[in-house]
Amino acid sequence: MAVGYQGLPKLHPVGGVRLGTTAAGIKKPGRPDLVLIELARGATASAVFTRNAFCAAPVILAREHLSAREPSYLLVNTGNANAGTGRQGLVDAQTCCEAVASRGGCEAADVLPFSTGVIGEPLPVATLTQGIPAAFSALVAEGWANAADGILTTDTVPKGSSRQVEIGGRPVTITGISKGAGMIRPDMATMLAFIATDAVVERDVLDGLLKRAAGLSFNRISVDGDTSTNDACVLMATGASGVKPEPGSDDFETLETAVTAVCRELAQLIVRDGEGATKFIAIKVVKGRDQKECTDVAYTIAHSPLVKTAFFASDPNWGRILAAVGRAGVPDLNLQAVTIHLNEVCIVSDGGRAADYEEARGQLVMDQEEITIRVDLSRGSAEATVWTCDFSYDYVRINAEYRT
Amino acid sequence: MAVGYQGLPKLHPVGGVRLGTTAAGIKKPGRPDLVLIELARGATASAVFTRNAFCAAPVILAREHLSAREPSYLLVNTGNANAGTGRQGLVDAQTCCEAVASRGGCEAADVLPFSTGVIGEPLPVATLTQGIPAAFSALVAEGWANAADGILTTDTVPKGSSRQVEIGGRPVTITGISKGAGMIRPDMATMLAFIATDAVVERDVLDGLLKRAAGLSFNRISVDGDTSTNDACVLMATGASGVKPEPGSDDFETLETAVTAVCRELAQLIVRDGEGATKFIAIKVVKGRDQKECTDVAYTIAHSPLVKTAFFASDPNWGRILAAVGRAGVPDLNLQAVTIHLNEVCIVSDGGRAADYEEARGQLVMDQEEITIRVDLSRGSAEATVWTCDFSYDYVRINAEYRT
Repeated sequence: MAVGYQGLPKLHPVGGVRLGTTAAGIKKPGRPDLVLIELARGATASAVFTRNAFCAAPVILAREHLSAREPSYLLVNTGNANAGTGRQGLVDAQTCCEAVASRGGCEAADVLPFSTGVIGEPLPVATLTQGIPAAFSALVAEGWANAADGILTTDTVPKGSSRQVEIGGRPVTITGISKGAGMIRPDMATMLAFIATDAVVERDVLDGLLKRAAGLSFNRISVDGDTSTNDACVLMATGASGVKPEPGSDDFETLETAVTAVCRELAQLIVRDGEGATKFIAIKVVKGRDQKECTDVAYTIAHSPLVKTAFFASDPNWGRILAAVGRAGVPDLNLQAVTIHLNEVCIVSDGGRAADYEEARGQLVMDQEEITIRVDLSRGSAEATVWTCDFSYDYVRINAEYRT
Repeated sequence: MAVGYQGLPKLHPVGGVRLGTTAAGIKKPGRPDLVLIELARGATASAVFTRNAFCAAPVILAREHLSAREPSYLLVNTGNANAGTGRQGLVDAQTCCEAVASRGGCEAADVLPFSTGVIGEPLPVATLTQGIPAAFSALVAEGWANAADGILTTDTVPKGSSRQVEIGGRPVTITGISKGAGMIRPDMATMLAFIATDAVVERDVLDGLLKRAAGLSFNRISVDGDTSTNDACVLMATGASGVKPEPGSDDFETLETAVTAVCRELAQLIVRDGEGATKFIAIKVVKGRDQKECTDVAYTIAHSPLVKTAFFASDPNWGRILAAVGRAGVPDLNLQAVTIHLNEVCIVSDGGRAADYEEARGQLVMDQEEITIRVDLSRGSAEATVWTCDFSYDYVRINAEYRT
């Protein structure tokens, strides 16, 4: 069970968005595996994709389609990533877009395809396209929770987040769903997130908003440091509320804060459901010279198998955290000035173990399920937070036994 | 037991080097934990140290002493890393150097200190220095095997390598020992290697030789991607053979090849004895544009927990290797041209699974204990090889239970 999981919250419908989920038979019979998202005319959409050079066929096609126009439909299948499938993979993804377009009365370029599941198997195009009529029939505004189920692979829980804020005296909704359990499992290629708002946001403004929100959420999590061939995050703005916050205004700030909060919650849910995770760890690096050195330090800690196994063992092994900070490549770091805290307990100061540190106090923190590591570099005003989980026997089991 | 370990080979004495090993009581009573290496007058020495900013007190002092003059003694203790010990750690390391100097009739600056073991505990200076007379009494030219035992921490086997080559018709010896089981365990801070030759090599030439040899050996291994606070590798040239190969000559090439071979063998022994290792994996990246992109790709594969757990499971999971190549950050990589082999079996070509690949053939390779991954980037003439091991339940157990 995911660390600190509270169940799926109420997911408010977003005007201009309908979702249809069906069991097309790509996975086990009866298991939802195909999700169709319909956007009303006039909606804008923005997406960020994996930086993996071996990106999957649907990523290539979705990026291409999105560059030309605003989408009418998003088609998401689980059970097969259509990755490592070469040229045939592109043909298959295009065929699926055409099937949606012919049923939906639009062009194939108006459809964005997304796939998640096993790498390297041919996409079962016939099975998938046979499910499309049922997905159309299932389209409803209240379809978010079903869709949250329909995009899962080996996740143990569905992931959703929803906010309603008031902008200029009128309600605006932001709702999103995500999936992913290894930060990326290339063989269950992996993180997907779909977020919609009924605010009016033009495409170039939406691009900037998504980039910033993802930078503070999906790009700040790590389960195992791997990066999928299929990662994608889509932000859609339908405009159905009629509310158009001007970029730079307080109203826009309200929207951006809410979108970022939804993204952060969806991202943290992926870490909480991390493979084999028993702890949820926030790594906060403060007083760095710039963002880059803060994230370098945070990720070096987050990716260290030694730190992660120590957390699994609830072992307040401050030496491993100190060594990770030391090898993060921060130039001219004044070690005497660096302090490291586990929650409120100072574990490192003056270049070594804090003088007043007692193991029993560190142990009290480590015994908790949610822990914050705070590294103070004491040389600037930048800061960054990264979320990760521990490294357990179950991580090895899940990833060693996945295909056997 | 270390993967493919053949036992300690015959370690030829090196003229001008004597080694004394004793049980000072830093570790369990009766367990060898203190090694003294004596260098004859006229010897030169070169060292490479950890790049971890939080480097240990003995690393700081050894670097300082070596910059001023040629050493007469190296003092190595296990059981305590004298790392994360702040200013007192420097005082303690200096006290140990002084104790050796007063017994050996030299100055403290002629002594290089090395420590390995638990981080963050004060160095037990009294216990350590009481052992120094016994270490002096034990000094013998045949002391290499005992020293190989004396520098171990949680290694499961002693590590040594020895070569004799003929240069200008005269025999030259190169002998070395190493320790380390996690690439670095910051809490058992970690890799040490001491190599000596009786060739005559001037300091600046020796510096270049060690840098190149370490670049092809100790800097090409990874167990878990962590980097210790205490890593050090020392190359000593006593000149006792009277053979002085001129830099640039064929004779020097003979010496360099032998030194590099000894370093590579010592480095590989560390991987073979990697924590929880059940497989020894060579990752060879060829036809890259430059060294950097070759090592970037090799290390991305070597550090991927997903790849490492697949090797533990003997699972020919080519998708994970492909995804690791894809996220290594190689600019403008032509995916269609990349090929990946497991030993002689082609698993990836034309941007996906090789057309003629059969799982059974991949399985035959994966069932072996020693495996080579060969990645052909098909865009240049650079290449690099990195050695690593798999990621097992025992890695988690060893690192989760280490202090509990």
